Amino acid sequence: MKPFFQVKTPQEIFELIQGFPLLPGERVLLSEGMNRVLSEDIFSPEDLPHFPRATMDGYAVRARDTFGASEAVPALLTLSGEIAMGQDVKAPVEPGHCFHIATGGMVPPGADAVVMIEHTQQLNSKIIEIFKSVSPLDYVIQVGEDIKKSETVLVAGQRLRPQDLGLLAGLGVIDIPVYRQPKVAIISTGDEIVPVEEQPLPGFIRDINAITLQALTAESGARLKFFGRAQDKFEDLKALCKKGLDQTDMVLISGGSSVGVRDHTLEVIQGFPGSKILAHGISISPGKPTILARVGDKIIWGLPGHTVSAMIVFALFVNPCLKHLEGEKIGRQIPGVKARLTRNIASAQGREEYIRVALEKGEMGWEAVPVLGKSGLISTMVRADGIIRIDQNCEGLEKGEWVEVVLF
Amino acid sequence: MKPFFQVKTPQEIFELIQGFPLLPGERVLLSEGMNRVLSEDIFSPEDLPHFPRATMDGYAVRARDTFGASEAVPALLTLSGEIAMGQDVKAPVEPGHCFHIATGGMVPPGADAVVMIEHTQQLNSKIIEIFKSVSPLDYVIQVGEDIKKSETVLVAGQRLRPQDLGLLAGLGVIDIPVYRQPKVAIISTGDEIVPVEEQPLPGFIRDINAITLQALTAESGARLKFFGRAQDKFEDLKALCKKGLDQTDMVLISGGSSVGVRDHTLEVIQGFPGSKILAHGISISPGKPTILARVGDKIIWGLPGHTVSAMIVFALFVNPCLKHLEGEKIGRQIPGVKARLTRNIASAQGREEYIRVALEKGEMGWEAVPVLGKSGLISTMVRADGIIRIDQNCEGLEKGEWVEVVLF
Repeated sequence: MKPFFQVKTPQEIFELIQGFPLLPGERVLLSEGMNRVLSEDIFSPEDLPHFPRATMDGYAVRARDTFGASEAVPALLTLSGEIAMGQDVKAPVEPGHCFHIATGGMVPPGADAVVMIEHTQQLNSKIIEIFKSVSPLDYVIQVGEDIKKSETVLVAGQRLRPQDLGLLAGLGVIDIPVYRQPKVAIISTGDEIVPVEEQPLPGFIRDINAITLQALTAESGARLKFFGRAQDKFEDLKALCKKGLDQTDMVLISGGSSVGVRDHTLEVIQGFPGSKILAHGISISPGKPTILARVGDKIIWGLPGHTVSAMIVFALFVNPCLKHLEGEKIGRQIPGVKARLTRNIASAQGREEYIRVALEKGEMGWEAVPVLGKSGLISTMVRADGIIRIDQNCEGLEKGEWVEVVLF
Repeated sequence: MKPFFQVKTPQEIFELIQGFPLLPGERVLLSEGMNRVLSEDIFSPEDLPHFPRATMDGYAVRARDTFGASEAVPALLTLSGEIAMGQDVKAPVEPGHCFHIATGGMVPPGADAVVMIEHTQQLNSKIIEIFKSVSPLDYVIQVGEDIKKSETVLVAGQRLRPQDLGLLAGLGVIDIPVYRQPKVAIISTGDEIVPVEEQPLPGFIRDINAITLQALTAESGARLKFFGRAQDKFEDLKALCKKGLDQTDMVLISGGSSVGVRDHTLEVIQGFPGSKILAHGISISPGKPTILARVGDKIIWGLPGHTVSAMIVFALFVNPCLKHLEGEKIGRQIPGVKARLTRNIASAQGREEYIRVALEKGEMGWEAVPVLGKSGLISTMVRADGIIRIDQNCEGLEKGEWVEVVLF
């Protein structure tokens, strides 16, 4: 086996990723905006709400008319009428008067608060008893209280969630600037790999990595452009790689774990004009035999053959790389689930180590149960709920320690 | 306002949900299985791997032939040849012999371990020096070590992740039994609501809930079947509800927050033969004015008008309800992010309270910063990263307490 000639630390890989140019922007309809990343800051074109709204059913009043009101000594107000939903009320509330109003209704001029219906009683068709005093602005959303006109409401680099779309809807921003989603090619390699539909002969094995990587790619928000399978032949791999570089932003080469495939991958990449091998080896375990390269603006990852290692490299680096290309702010700090480790784990110093764990609910909160097993065993990933990190300079973790589990 | 006549606790709502019948099963291709829920247990049709595989590049050996080998006193083995990827090796390894083998290659009969290439040196075309002894099974994945034939590999009720699909691929299970995804109708109501494309006049407001609920529905794995908008008229709402019940599994009524709409919603539901109001009010804040009803096997939710309340009810109940219909095991315990609260929060007893929080990275780990503001303000959801729960019998939380943040 040829040695890894350019081993990089995880931090160095992250810095490389953060240096890649972002994809260009495009515009999509609000209804297609879920999970897309904003490419420009959004300023509010108007106040939200653009009229004062009641937040409770009750009576719109002048707060000063309720001062001192109580169960024993109610304030008596004259009912001027009822405000219909959507009604633009122009006539101001006279002193000592009130309007019946429903949640979401427009608080009329002159009124500055709403008394909840529960704290009132209608004496007759004209008079309302108020049993509780209110302060100005009680149960009223003022003009611009949610969002002020010209305010920056969302910033470039944010991935849009349901509530962000709701905010844009409220402001009438229906044509939104987003980054293009990365297009990805996945290439499976290795003479021993057969398609999942086939019954493998002894010595052969079905292509586990292809479907796993396809699902991870879809989950990350990227678009799978095509999938190809290359035999362990230089020309096969070169042709598929060329197609990937022509049609997509990122090529993932995976599957074959033999020396031949690894050598071919390097040689194929180096054969493209303007190619640059950025990393050949990452100081993590599992996942060391990883290649990161650029050909112009396109990115190529050579992933480890073991599915567990490939998944961990995807989660740690490929996924953030896709998110970065799509303009999202990325960091190495992902909020995880705090859990107590259920046994000691030793670790070799000099590299970051990632341990698969299952989460179980214990008496003291969540417990992280290490899932042991070779990185060639996909069943270990199936039994796991996430991974924990052991730092490079750490000799291991002790039973009972709090760890942060990144779920997958 | 009419009182809530059937207020239920969150736990009671959960028990109701868990009593709803599951949707029927169907079969999909493995490539369409991502995020689908298994409707049957999956048993392995074969051993994985079905032949012993090397997990390192090196030499396949009989472990006993390496006993005592060291840098100073290497074992000398005769090279019998090289095992190609995918090669079905029939001839056994003779005592004192070895085969060159690559990761993933088939360990030949007689051999029971692999010596890593790093611990060897080729003396000449026939003789390999072994510098380190290995134990039986070192660097070999045995037949069935990943998965044994007939073993239960995945169980009904599991939502399929990338690694689960990988496992099914490895076993050649390409036609998978899953529950049908729930179909959802979303109905926006309220005379004051206008479509997002329109410029609302004073007293009117754009439909924020519709797009928010559509995005939440899509995120939950359900399928939005149709979206409709009803004016605050009994017949409008009844016709849309009827269409929803005919075409989908769940109808979400949302938007209007006026008394009229709420009364109409109740009356419309009660007008359908076989209807049953299961809850009218939930003892949580925000989110109390919620209706849960059944019409035959179909479910109707009447959601609060305020977007924040509607989102919280969706996250706490509607989303688990959709997941339950789709056959997923649900519980009220969702792993969240542990964070320290940055200020005191008071809470009224007698109802569960949900507080929006933003996550910030502090020196001691994550900090949960409460996002205050009325539940009518969508901007508070946009500034928040998740919610924390204050239990029914708790008077509040103190600054510095550890809380569990459920992200959204």
